[in-house]
Parts: sequence; structure tokens; C-alpha cells
Amino acid sequence: MREAPGAEQMSAKAESMNVDLPAYMQDVGQRARAAARSISRADTGMKNAALDAIADAIMQSAEQLKTENEKDLAAGRQGGLDDALLDRLELNDERIAGMAEGLRQIAALPDPVGSVSDMNYRPSGIQVGRMRVPLGVIGIIYESRPNVTADAAGLCLKSGNATILRGGSEALHSNQAIVACIHTGLSAAGLPPDVVQVIETTDRAAVGELIRMEDCVDVIVPRGGKGLIERISKESRVPVIKHLHGICHTYIDDLADIDKAVRVAVNAKTQRYGTCNTMETLLVAQDIAGRVLPELARQYADAGVELRGCEATRRLLSDITAATGADWDTEYLAPILSIKVVKDLDEAIDHINTNSSQHTDSIVTENFSRARRFLAEVDSSSVMHNASTRFADGFEYGLGAEIGISTQKLHARGPMGLKELTTTKYVIYGNGQIRK
Amino acid sequence: MREAPGAEQMSAKAESMNVDLPAYMQDVGQRARAAARSISRADTGMKNAALDAIADAIMQSAEQLKTENEKDLAAGRQGGLDDALLDRLELNDERIAGMAEGLRQIAALPDPVGSVSDMNYRPSGIQVGRMRVPLGVIGIIYESRPNVTADAAGLCLKSGNATILRGGSEALHSNQAIVACIHTGLSAAGLPPDVVQVIETTDRAAVGELIRMEDCVDVIVPRGGKGLIERISKESRVPVIKHLHGICHTYIDDLADIDKAVRVAVNAKTQRYGTCNTMETLLVAQDIAGRVLPELARQYADAGVELRGCEATRRLLSDITAATGADWDTEYLAPILSIKVVKDLDEAIDHINTNSSQHTDSIVTENFSRARRFLAEVDSSSVMHNASTRFADGFEYGLGAEIGISTQKLHARGPMGLKELTTTKYVIYGNGQIRK
Repeated sequence: MREAPGAEQMSAKAESMNVDLPAYMQDVGQRARAAARSISRADTGMKNAALDAIADAIMQSAEQLKTENEKDLAAGRQGGLDDALLDRLELNDERIAGMAEGLRQIAALPDPVGSVSDMNYRPSGIQVGRMRVPLGVIGIIYESRPNVTADAAGLCLKSGNATILRGGSEALHSNQAIVACIHTGLSAAGLPPDVVQVIETTDRAAVGELIRMEDCVDVIVPRGGKGLIERISKESRVPVIKHLHGICHTYIDDLADIDKAVRVAVNAKTQRYGTCNTMETLLVAQDIAGRVLPELARQYADAGVELRGCEATRRLLSDITAATGADWDTEYLAPILSIKVVKDLDEAIDHINTNSSQHTDSIVTENFSRARRFLAEVDSSSVMHNASTRFADGFEYGLGAEIGISTQKLHARGPMGLKELTTTKYVIYGNGQIRK
Repeated sequence: MREAPGAEQMSAKAESMNVDLPAYMQDVGQRARAAARSISRADTGMKNAALDAIADAIMQSAEQLKTENEKDLAAGRQGGLDDALLDRLELNDERIAGMAEGLRQIAALPDPVGSVSDMNYRPSGIQVGRMRVPLGVIGIIYESRPNVTADAAGLCLKSGNATILRGGSEALHSNQAIVACIHTGLSAAGLPPDVVQVIETTDRAAVGELIRMEDCVDVIVPRGGKGLIERISKESRVPVIKHLHGICHTYIDDLADIDKAVRVAVNAKTQRYGTCNTMETLLVAQDIAGRVLPELARQYADAGVELRGCEATRRLLSDITAATGADWDTEYLAPILSIKVVKDLDEAIDHINTNSSQHTDSIVTENFSRARRFLAEVDSSSVMHNASTRFADGFEYGLGAEIGISTQKLHARGPMGLKELTTTKYVIYGNGQIRK
């Protein structure tokens, strides 16, 4: 197989690029546009063969991937990256096998491209239906985790799109080594390598160029911190699908089953702390607070979760910190939970629609009418009844894989799978019909 | 019924507004946001009752609508508006009855809101489905035709959205009179009038404010000239659904049925000249050109269409003008047609994907494989086989009504009906499930 280019070559390329960055980015964009035409026409078997060949190349290059990754890790340690970031950056045998397995799973998913639906006759005699087609060129801007490189490229490839990847500069060697494997697999399947390109410079201005290349790029998917995403949304001329943070809520209604309430509320907070679908605020109806909060407090204490409560909460759990206004708007991504006692369902819905990031919110109740209202009126991408917010995930929802969780309303809302990486066009069959 | 406010009152309001335009727009936005919550929960019967009541109010106010419209027409004539614009601006009895009838038709359409689909069990025991919900607040920026005010407001109302309307300044009196009827109907049905607001100032800066109110507005739908739409797309912080121009093509393949080819190509150009789905360029395969172009030229001449041709076309039709490069990129909106003879299907697809505005393009052929390739490979919002491009329309496609024809790929592509004015959220039913 083709070798990943050596590190010296890379740095030379990256440094020399500052001179003509716009020209370099235009070249990347035009090559992506041309490759998008090829991949949009590739049949399913060819795309699956490429995905399998990329998985093979990744497994065969495991040692090289670790060597390149070690360069990033060493630079990261020297640059003072914290342990959590270094952990995300690391490629070990398990993660390398995970990338390959993920690509094989994408190969096994149904191909959304070309599927025709709703084909019906109209009174004029024409038939009108919709055909699912690729978006074209997708720009993905993300941070440290190098496995995103393989996942995102695989999903875009299967859905018939060309991809321009811009990973975090701290993962550049790892990402370039992974893209070398992707190019090997694409070539083996007879597809042009330009279907997946990685931006080979750490110059931050490259992002500024990418989001203004409306002729070459059809959509930008930014994944990362709130600041990055807001800046991109503000400056981009290319449509953006935002993946913002999650301030997720669980509301325990006074007609909840106590066992379910405790189980769901503990899981939503403690199953993992650093994920966007983790609960950050617990709302409890005042008529049940005395019966659930003491048991919940015990279990949260066992898990090491710090509680911050409103006044009514602190009357029941005297030893916890007072929550301030800022707590209701904070994504902790940590073992911290804010708790608020509310009068009823109306106050819970109001609090959520005011403070939630419209990601995922759950109600625990045995009452049908209240659940129905919560699901209809809470304006979030996932609304749940008697289930942990941690389920908000493409795999759990049956999408097979996800490119991320969209927190916007247009085009894709919630976990984004292959279908959300496509659009439709109207297809009309006639027999010489004309408009009267 | 409530009277439309008098013109004096309006102008006073409009002039005084320059001082605190941002405050005025913020107030409009916040009232729309609050109204969006009410209308999102309104049941189908209530929304239909409002639509019927608005239709009644419009019919009862016909004289007043014409009086207000006459003020706009008089100002337009004085300001030197051309005849085509004055015609679009005019409200006569037929057009007033058409607005009312359009609203009653919208009332008769199925309500998309709340519909739940794809509800399936997952291995974890949760059920996952999607619920269709309103987008929230929709800002519509449009030009002279006042009937758009009633159509757009009706579609947004039925789909559970609040609307902020910004019509052309030349139609302000007409639009305000129509919105007075809308408010009468909303009140009669027990819905807040703020569900539909019209921006009551002709200050152009109001558009600049509207497209930056990302907290209050969920989507901007601009309808109008290319310049307006491109400026809004560039400056907007709110997501935009573009309705751009149409450079539509018909390709007559050498395996076409000659009768169908002539019928379709004549209709696509001559049935109406000023619409975005009118053909602007005809492509003809070289092996059939000699058999179709002379007959087509006769029929176009009868209809008064000016032809502009490539060299090969002019060898067959010696008395026509030469087409220049600009002709392939021009939306004439007039009785002018550019004609190009191409070698084959490949050249036709290349020409279209390079020059088309990705609106609507049609192939005429009896060959299945060529039609299949054209439909798959032409990257436009509507692709047609043996049918006139003039069919690209929400009514003809069976959407019941349309807010416009989107020329972008994200969220809505092609004619936009009620469904495209909504989004979905994931709905999860559980019984206390937790993530393992």
C-alpha cells in the first residue's frame, strides 16, 4: 500500500503554504467539486468496496498510524495539552480496530442515494416523485479526536459526497496518516482520491477560506466548542449545520413512578459526564420532591456528583450548594448537577424552553396527557418519555452511525445519519405532457 | 370587522420609526416569538377556522382593499413604475377572490403538524420516531405582488408558524390592508394577531435588522431579484431558504419522438414568459437538429419568440441572431430563446450542470437508459422526462400550494409546500430504560 507521507514533507508543505493559501484552498475546492461528480455516480458496490478497502488499509497500517499519532502526542505533551485532550488524541490498537469496524458497518448500511419515493400520477398525466441525491461537497471542521476523520469520511463517501476535512492542528500527523489509508482504499476501488481531502496546513486562515468557498462547498459541518461553532455560523457563506452543546433536562413529574424516576435521573447524569446528551439540570415537581430527592442525593453522592440546588431543593437537601442563575445555562460536562423544584408541568416546560439548548429533554411520568404535552411542547431535537437522555445518539436511534447531533431546525435536527447527508430532487415522468 | 388603519396613520408611523428602528424590530421579533408558541399548539380546527375567517374578511373588504391598492398604484404611476410592475401590483376583483379561494384551499389541506412517523422499537426497548413540528418564526421578504401577503401568511399559519412579512415598499398600503383582514380572521378564531405581522416601515434598514435577529427568527425566505437574494444570503445570520432565478433547459435527444419534442419545447418557452420555470435555453442533439429545428423555428416565429443560436443552429436556421457566451447564463423572462446544438447526452448534461441555475431541466427522448442518466446526473431541483419545464410548480406537483421554489439543496429543494415549512424532532417512548 501507499505510504503515509513523512512528517518532514508535511511540515515543509504546511509552512510554505502561508504564501498562497487562497490558491491552495481554491485548488482543494475545485478538486473536491470534480470528485463529487464521480462519487455521486458511483454505484453502491463500488462505494462499499472502497469502505472495506479503507478498513483493510487502516488495519494494515496500524503501526504506522501509532507512529504518526505518537508525534502528535509528543507535541501535545510538550505544548501542555491536558490529560483529557491527550486521551482524545490517542490512537491505540483498540481505537484503530474501532475505526476499521465502523467503516465496515457503514458499508453494511443501505445506500440512501438514488432511492425514489412518493411517485404518484397527477391529474395532468405526469408522475411526480422524489429522488434522494448527495449534497455534493461537505466541509467538516472538528477538533482533536482523529477517529472522526475515518467516521466522517466514511459516512460522506457512502452518501455519495466529496469531503474536505479540517481536523485540529494538534492531530495533523494522525489525520494525514488516516487519510493516506483512505486514499489507498479509494484507489483500490477505482475511485478518485480527491473524494476525501484533508487540509494540509495548520494555518487558521484556511477555515476562513473554506467557509467562503460557496461555489465549491455545499455545506459546512462544524463540530467542537461553542465559540468555534458560533464564529463559523456568523462568518460562513456556505450553509452550516450546527452541532452545538447540550444543556439537557430531566423533569420528574409528580405522577412519576419513583423507581423509574430515580433510575432514569441517575443514568442521565452519571453514565458518562463529558457527552452532549448528559443531563445538566434536574427538574422535580414539588409534590414528589420529598419522595425522590433524598434517594437521588444518596446515589449522586455515591457517584461523586456535586449538587447545586434552588432554595426548595436546599430545604430538602440541606448540605448542598445554592445554584445561581448561571447554573441553569451551563453545560458542566462534569460530575455536577443543578436541581430545581418546580410547581408543575407548565413551569417545567417554561424552564426548559427558556434554558435548554434544544438538544434533548426527558419527562418521567405515568400520566399520558402530561407526557403528550411535554413531547409536543418542548422545542428540542429529541424529546423523551421515561427514558434517559443518554439515548440521544445515532446508533441508539438505529441510524447505524452518525456524523454528529444537529441542534438546528433546518435540514437535519438531532442525530444525523446517512440520510441527512443527502437531499432530494423532484423527478417527473411524462409522455409529452404540456402545461395548459 | 376591524377597519384597515388609514393611510395618514401609516405614514406617520413609518416616518417616526427611523429614530428607533432597532427597538421597533426587536418588539416585532419578540411578539412573533411569543405568538409562535401559541400557534404551534393551536389545533387543526382552530387554524382552519382562522383561514376561513381571513378569507371571509378579504371578501368583505374588497372595496377597501381596492381603495388602499389604488394609493399604491397612484404612487407607482407617479414614481414611474413600468407596466409589468404596475400589473403585478394591482388588486382587482378577480385577484381578491383568488386570494380568498387560496386561503380556503390551504384550510382544506392536511395539517402536517404533530404527525408522527417511523416509530420503531430499538434493541434497548425504547421506541424512536419523528414528529413533524413548526419551524417557529418565518421572515418573508418579497417584492411587489400583494397577493403573496395572503398566500404566505396562510401557508405559515396552517403549518403552525408565526410570520413577519416584509413586502415591497410600493405595495405597503395594499399589504397593510390585507394584514388587517388577516388580523380580523385570527381574532375571530381566538388566535393572537401577532401570528402574522407586517413590517410597517419602508425603511430599508428594517431588512438588515430582520436578518440579524437570530434569537427571534428561525428562517428567512427571500423572494425577488437575484441581487436582493444574494445580498440577504451573504448578510443574514438567520438561515435563508433561497428562491433564486431559473435558467431552465430542454434537451431534445436524437432518440426523441419528434411530435413530443416540438410540443414540449414550444410549451416550455411560450406558455408564459415571465415565470422562473420557463425554458431559456434549448439543447438539441446534432443528429436530430435538422428534423426538429425548422418546425420549432416556425412555431416560435408564430408566437413572436426571438431566437439566438450557436453556429450549428445558424447553419440550419440562417436568419437568426448569433448567441454570445452571455446568452447561456441569462434568464430572459421574455420571448427570447437561446438554442445550442450538442453532440450527445454527455455534452447536454455538461452544458446544463455548468450553466443551469439548478432549477428545472427536461430531456425529451424515447430511450430509457438516456432518460435514466439525465434524471440521475443533472443536478437540479426538478429533473423531467418528456414533460414541459412549466410543470415545476407546487400545485402541479400536488403540494396544494407553494411558498415558492427553493433553488438550494439544504432543507427544501424545489417547490416548497406546507411540509417544507416544518421540521421534525425525535420522539422517544420508554418505560424507564437507561443507557448501559
